[in-house]
Amino acid sequence: MSRPSSPESPSMKRAADIAAVAVLLQIGAELGADQVLDAGQAFDAAELARVTGLPQHGMAEYLTALSAAGLVAETGAPGEYRPADDYAQRRYEAGYVSWSMSANYPFVEHARAFLTDPAAAAKAHHRDGRRVAVSSKWVGERDFYPGVFEHVNASGARKVTDLGAGAGGLLIKLLRQDPERHGVALDLSGAACAAAREASVAAGVEERLEVVERPIESLIEDRSPVEGAEAIQACFVMHDVVEDDAVFQGVLGACRDGLAPGGFMAVCDAVRYAPDETERRFSALFTYLHANFMDIRLPTEAAWLEKFETAGFSSVKCLPQPMPGARLFIATK
Amino acid sequence: MSRPSSPESPSMKRAADIAAVAVLLQIGAELGADQVLDAGQAFDAAELARVTGLPQHGMAEYLTALSAAGLVAETGAPGEYRPADDYAQRRYEAGYVSWSMSANYPFVEHARAFLTDPAAAAKAHHRDGRRVAVSSKWVGERDFYPGVFEHVNASGARKVTDLGAGAGGLLIKLLRQDPERHGVALDLSGAACAAAREASVAAGVEERLEVVERPIESLIEDRSPVEGAEAIQACFVMHDVVEDDAVFQGVLGACRDGLAPGGFMAVCDAVRYAPDETERRFSALFTYLHANFMDIRLPTEAAWLEKFETAGFSSVKCLPQPMPGARLFIATK
Repeated sequence: MSRPSSPESPSMKRAADIAAVAVLLQIGAELGADQVLDAGQAFDAAELARVTGLPQHGMAEYLTALSAAGLVAETGAPGEYRPADDYAQRRYEAGYVSWSMSANYPFVEHARAFLTDPAAAAKAHHRDGRRVAVSSKWVGERDFYPGVFEHVNASGARKVTDLGAGAGGLLIKLLRQDPERHGVALDLSGAACAAAREASVAAGVEERLEVVERPIESLIEDRSPVEGAEAIQACFVMHDVVEDDAVFQGVLGACRDGLAPGGFMAVCDAVRYAPDETERRFSALFTYLHANFMDIRLPTEAAWLEKFETAGFSSVKCLPQPMPGARLFIATK
Repeated sequence: MSRPSSPESPSMKRAADIAAVAVLLQIGAELGADQVLDAGQAFDAAELARVTGLPQHGMAEYLTALSAAGLVAETGAPGEYRPADDYAQRRYEAGYVSWSMSANYPFVEHARAFLTDPAAAAKAHHRDGRRVAVSSKWVGERDFYPGVFEHVNASGARKVTDLGAGAGGLLIKLLRQDPERHGVALDLSGAACAAAREASVAAGVEERLEVVERPIESLIEDRSPVEGAEAIQACFVMHDVVEDDAVFQGVLGACRDGLAPGGFMAVCDAVRYAPDETERRFSALFTYLHANFMDIRLPTEAAWLEKFETAGFSSVKCLPQPMPGARLFIATK
């Protein structure tokens, strides 16, 4: 039976498609099936059951749903599937929904509490770190990591420090590009640091990667993690310390002082309420959630530039990134 | 500063737009601001504060975000806004994200528990009725209510029973079309029945609306709510009793027997895994969530048709609806 003619164009059903794919893939991430899907190889329900530790019947049902949705395709071997050709594109789109609604769900669900008593609500309702990290990665792999990667890689920097390195994915990718490159991964999360160490061993770059479990504010007292760096990169972490201008200037100053001559910071972060038509909606959500649920007031683009200039960098460039509201600031010593 | 050229077309940023709008509007529904926005009139932060019982400062911040996102526009009077011209379209798209991710979040968040011990998980983790109702309304106002409304209204039916009537919106709209039309709103939720009574008074149709708080299975023992009806309508409620074929046939038989001569059922419901390219993604999510998290195995289109035929209806038509996977079955006595 064919679909009815409708006043709506096919593109107007995109909301249903995007929403459905996001929830199917988010469920996959909750089950632990995402690592199998992301590997891009053929697999079956038995392998999903083994990796996730869940009943094979349930994984077969999940595979039926993924197949019906066109997210996986049959290989021809009985019960065997592989990710569909557009899986990466679908996962990327899903990332925006998963970050916006799922990673931030404690804020959505308890919105009244946050507007009534923000301090008490912030203590009671926390985001889940893995949900934030996974959805950020789905978006970032297309919309903000490439900008930082390409700039730092093209610079030829041999000593790179990543502030808020998380599981170290971006830095390890840079180390694999150049066997002479060394990295320092700084993160305040012990779990993230452990993941970065593990990933560096898996990538065979563990001898060129130092992992430092510290908050970025600690650079004010001890700037050794950035000392002599030719590039210091930071993706959506500098806004965590932007609220107190003295602290922020202290961190920027330590980075500037620590950088090797001619070195630079590559800071990817978000601006406050970007007005452009292509950016305004997601930027509004990002700005609003940070200000009202995370106590972080994002600077405007001009205010970000001024902060780098005040810290004594000799030149600062601002490069818009594909993620709405995101900018890559290149601040040269 | 202009946006960078990018390999992606503007439409590929739709995922970010749709996700952001959905979360902003879902937060509005959590705060209770949705009723003010939906009214379509001019309003300010003070009115939002009064209606929601939340601090005016917080509502002003929320309005700033809605304005930055283009969901509301300034009227020209200081601090006064009205919904943007495309608010209804944006809310409709948001409905798919809100239903998929927010209304179903207990399933997403506890997916491992549902796959490990479905019965225990179903007891422990419930969807929030208002989140389900609000997001279903946002979708349904464009994608499935109009089909039922137009068919029942055009039939000229004077006695209409709505099974699973919820807050009575669809039935009350039908009563307002014809002063000779009478309705019976049946729902198992006491809160929904109370809302339907209240809405009927607000619409001035309370003397023509009978509200009956009962499950639809009860029609097998007592079919008085459908006795003499010229139309019986049911939106996404018949699948609740589809699992036990004897019960389902009992309900359909009671409806057929109760209908006036020439009367009909208008049942809008979902089919199992619709394969069409425009339907497959959302239909996959809908089918999978019902089977694995709500213990409801949706029939195929052919199986739905067979059930009506088995129940002795003289003719059954199937009309695809704009919501992916949705069908309107018209079964005539």
